[in-house]
Amino acid sequence: MKLTILGCYAATPRTLTNPTSQVLEIKNRLFLIDCGEGTQVQLRKNKLKFSKINHVFISHLHGDHFFGLIGLISTFALLGRTTDLHIYGPKGIKEIIDLQLKLSNSWTNYQLFFHELESKESVIVYEDDKVIVKTIPLKHRVYTNGFLFQEKIGERRLDLNAVRDYEIDKCYYQNIKNGRDITLEDGRIIPNHKLTFEPIPPLSYAFCSDTKYSEEIIPLIENVTVLYHESTFLQSEETLAQKTMHSTAKEAAKIALKANVKQLILGHYSTRYDSIDVFKKEAETIFKEVLLAEDGKSFEF
Amino acid sequence: MKLTILGCYAATPRTLTNPTSQVLEIKNRLFLIDCGEGTQVQLRKNKLKFSKINHVFISHLHGDHFFGLIGLISTFALLGRTTDLHIYGPKGIKEIIDLQLKLSNSWTNYQLFFHELESKESVIVYEDDKVIVKTIPLKHRVYTNGFLFQEKIGERRLDLNAVRDYEIDKCYYQNIKNGRDITLEDGRIIPNHKLTFEPIPPLSYAFCSDTKYSEEIIPLIENVTVLYHESTFLQSEETLAQKTMHSTAKEAAKIALKANVKQLILGHYSTRYDSIDVFKKEAETIFKEVLLAEDGKSFEF
Repeated sequence: MKLTILGCYAATPRTLTNPTSQVLEIKNRLFLIDCGEGTQVQLRKNKLKFSKINHVFISHLHGDHFFGLIGLISTFALLGRTTDLHIYGPKGIKEIIDLQLKLSNSWTNYQLFFHELESKESVIVYEDDKVIVKTIPLKHRVYTNGFLFQEKIGERRLDLNAVRDYEIDKCYYQNIKNGRDITLEDGRIIPNHKLTFEPIPPLSYAFCSDTKYSEEIIPLIENVTVLYHESTFLQSEETLAQKTMHSTAKEAAKIALKANVKQLILGHYSTRYDSIDVFKKEAETIFKEVLLAEDGKSFEF
Repeated sequence: MKLTILGCYAATPRTLTNPTSQVLEIKNRLFLIDCGEGTQVQLRKNKLKFSKINHVFISHLHGDHFFGLIGLISTFALLGRTTDLHIYGPKGIKEIIDLQLKLSNSWTNYQLFFHELESKESVIVYEDDKVIVKTIPLKHRVYTNGFLFQEKIGERRLDLNAVRDYEIDKCYYQNIKNGRDITLEDGRIIPNHKLTFEPIPPLSYAFCSDTKYSEEIIPLIENVTVLYHESTFLQSEETLAQKTMHSTAKEAAKIALKANVKQLILGHYSTRYDSIDVFKKEAETIFKEVLLAEDGKSFEF
């Protein structure tokens, strides 16, 4: 699982910082999460292939999270894309894109599917044989969802020594990996746990931005491998965080601790701070495993 | 008069090139012309103050000319702007901006005035005591206007030696500058042309992008100081230029020659070409005074 941060700053794009966008690579699928202005250039800079992006998840309709979407959709069209593109985002996003395509007398040669979200409960928005994506309802000034990306539990892993010792034919291997016990020719039944190891533990990634501090998300993100939680402010700006329905670094760390996540990544920093190191320091007073998102940085898990 | 190119490439923003946007400074007024994605960052990079931009002219509703507008409007709001902002552009632009502000539950603390254009004739869109701006109807795949920015003819310039020789009192100077003849105390009438020089010739700038080759614009742009004319293609791609309703460098030069402009600036280059020098060479076979637009480049006239 690999996460590339295209942008992780709040509010306005600047010369050296970009609004929210990131790419999650999980089980060889690429998911684009949020799409602030300049995302297509950030994708190019980070050498991420446009053609591999088939699913875009938009958390909410504040500009720093979606103003780059129409440009991305248009560029895909100009470059002759033919593969379907799926957009998951709040109700209204289709109207915004459709209106701009209509008024520019443009269209896409590929199919554009909008999956508009309205539910205040967590819902499954994407599922295939290896990955499932659910919404994480967040509390912000407009309707907002985080997204939980989960690998599905894989096959059990074959214990090669064991299957050789029992002289089991290769044609049974897939059944064994699927969890079946095996009956030998002499009638003995070998229970599956003697032939396999546990599957590789599935990885999971929870993207939570933008949101005020809310313990209601904890049951949804409990035990995830990586939690990206916004920390627009430091605790010194707690009042401002409450007023604007954002979180502080300390609050993000509290959520990480209570949800027992393995790794916390902070981001969505207000541009008022000269350095982001202070966010890490503040969060580490609560929770030890803290990483800082930075534009252009990749994390592998 | 100063022109700063923020972006001058066609179609899609890339790592090192930006879609159309430029800033014209004329008689101490700043006009933003077109606003492709990333314009706000280009303004910052070129150290152009957001607060000085009060008028934005949008040629047409293709993405590479306006996708940066909603971001600029939002950033102005976030930064606490209170000054009015005027947007001049094709009918529909208000709906696009309003819808996005509404769905993001956002608003501007400053007044946003839309001046939507529908006329197929040249119309005056802006006028004050020193500058007048008119549309230049262009021929493209969607409704498109270029813009003609003209300084108004100033006062006649006082011939200080002459007024001293005739011992004319200073209180008459303004009348003389306004073109009046003067009657001396001895009854002699001194005609204005003996007391003044011609006014400083007014400068003018014509922005013509995007458009196919069209001689119909010539009467509107005749004798302008500077003509920016798109040259998306070279003559070798003439067929493609016709099909997409764009111009070649040679065609831009033909227009410059026939309209007797002082200076031609080329821009809106297709990203298919590795170098832009070939555009200059091709245009110079027809018209001598050719400059190449480049992102971040300024021209003073």
